[in-house]
Amino acid sequence: MIQELAIVGVGLLGGSVAKAARAGGLARRVVGVGRDTARLRPALEDGTLDAATTDLDTGVRKADFVLLAAPVLAIEGLLERVWRAAPEGTVITDVGSTKRNIVRAAERLAAARPLTFVGSHPLAGSEQSGYRAARADLFRGATVVVTPTDRTELAALKRATEFWEALGARVSSLDPETHDRAVAAISHLPHLIACALVDGAGRVEPSALDLAARGFRDTTRIAAGDPEMWTEIFLANRDALSASVEGFQQALADLQRAIDAGVPEALRAALARIKATREALR
Amino acid sequence: MIQELAIVGVGLLGGSVAKAARAGGLARRVVGVGRDTARLRPALEDGTLDAATTDLDTGVRKADFVLLAAPVLAIEGLLERVWRAAPEGTVITDVGSTKRNIVRAAERLAAARPLTFVGSHPLAGSEQSGYRAARADLFRGATVVVTPTDRTELAALKRATEFWEALGARVSSLDPETHDRAVAAISHLPHLIACALVDGAGRVEPSALDLAARGFRDTTRIAAGDPEMWTEIFLANRDALSASVEGFQQALADLQRAIDAGVPEALRAALARIKATREALR
Repeated sequence: MIQELAIVGVGLLGGSVAKAARAGGLARRVVGVGRDTARLRPALEDGTLDAATTDLDTGVRKADFVLLAAPVLAIEGLLERVWRAAPEGTVITDVGSTKRNIVRAAERLAAARPLTFVGSHPLAGSEQSGYRAARADLFRGATVVVTPTDRTELAALKRATEFWEALGARVSSLDPETHDRAVAAISHLPHLIACALVDGAGRVEPSALDLAARGFRDTTRIAAGDPEMWTEIFLANRDALSASVEGFQQALADLQRAIDAGVPEALRAALARIKATREALR
Repeated sequence: MIQELAIVGVGLLGGSVAKAARAGGLARRVVGVGRDTARLRPALEDGTLDAATTDLDTGVRKADFVLLAAPVLAIEGLLERVWRAAPEGTVITDVGSTKRNIVRAAERLAAARPLTFVGSHPLAGSEQSGYRAARADLFRGATVVVTPTDRTELAALKRATEFWEALGARVSSLDPETHDRAVAAISHLPHLIACALVDGAGRVEPSALDLAARGFRDTTRIAAGDPEMWTEIFLANRDALSASVEGFQQALADLQRAIDAGVPEALRAALARIKATREALR
């Protein structure tokens, strides 16, 4: 049981954690921290938050569990301030979709003061954003990756893991670098690709977008994601993303070669192999 | 009202047309033609077909409306045989996902005998295939593109259009070349890309596929399509697909440049523009 859960950033993810924590009775008190009083009001009014503040120090001062649910590039800066303001023993985690830089920053801070940070990345979300889209079941059945290193305290890792599990998530553990490469391949690259598909279709044949069949709409649904958030993600995970684009380009070039060669057998075998891989996805 | 509707190929698309025609009373008789008696049996037994045959000539001999619902590369060959066997005045259409070669073949045949062909491409389907997946409402709300040329008889075009509309589809008209470029961009390229995403992800980071978030599963759902069918489609529409890959690569390169430059404003503007395009899709 958390005594006081401070959630920094009460948008889609932070708001959903708050609602789920409230619904599941995971915390005695839930405090929201945001930049804008007006934006915090709905979560106060519907009873999701016990208190809300725009002052970070005030918000985390009594927290024994802090969730940083801000955009990924803001999390490093927030970490520094939380590290100064939160009581000793507080466990801090986050929802940042890249982990290497955040975990490194936390480990530098840990040298000065014994707080503990466990990197988290819930693979849940939607093309929507903001508290209005938040819902208590957002993490039910979702995967949350925690990214401990050999310096992470086991007790803190256990607390963070149990926290996400209590919200209904399935928790996986990866080191921060592996995590960043994996999410580049399965999340950041597909998003980039979906954007390029939408943008490229109109360049080649203006009537194409009028036709847009179900397959195209499915494939490109994520291209309607929040530009602000994705700008941060692409920039934060630039290196892993670039490696991912390379793997994708190699795979695409292999398929194009098979098409250009005009040999049905080779193409069919490649597509069958890929179909099997896709079908094996949970 | 069609007197006798012959459907050549009673799989997902042909079977769905048969079921819809039966349900909507669009034809007095529905005859199925296939290569394998055993595979035709379910559609006979459930009352969807009035008759079934493995002999193409027998199947189309009395038809006033013929639907070629075979794989795209087979349609040209079937056209030639139907042209010899069907009665004069018969309207022939198809479901081929590329149109230029099929329409050209039909126009060569029309010089010899006055049958009329109207190219059709229903943008409906699923990752499933076969008669078992067929359903009467498959075309409800779907787009069907018809591809007349200046040699297409208006009466036949009207009949084909009304046929698809009676199945609940929205009918668009494009010339065959524009159609092929448009479907390359919105259907064939996304499929190719989804395959490359699945294949590339495992190359870069083997753990990536274990994580596979919802965005990745959505984006790559179509990569589980029938390898046989997609081999034919990729080969049949090779030129337009290649142009589409080029447009996509340019769009991707533009995005990568914005990411590499590390200027959030430019990237955000590009993503916002693409989001707006995506959201404007019907």
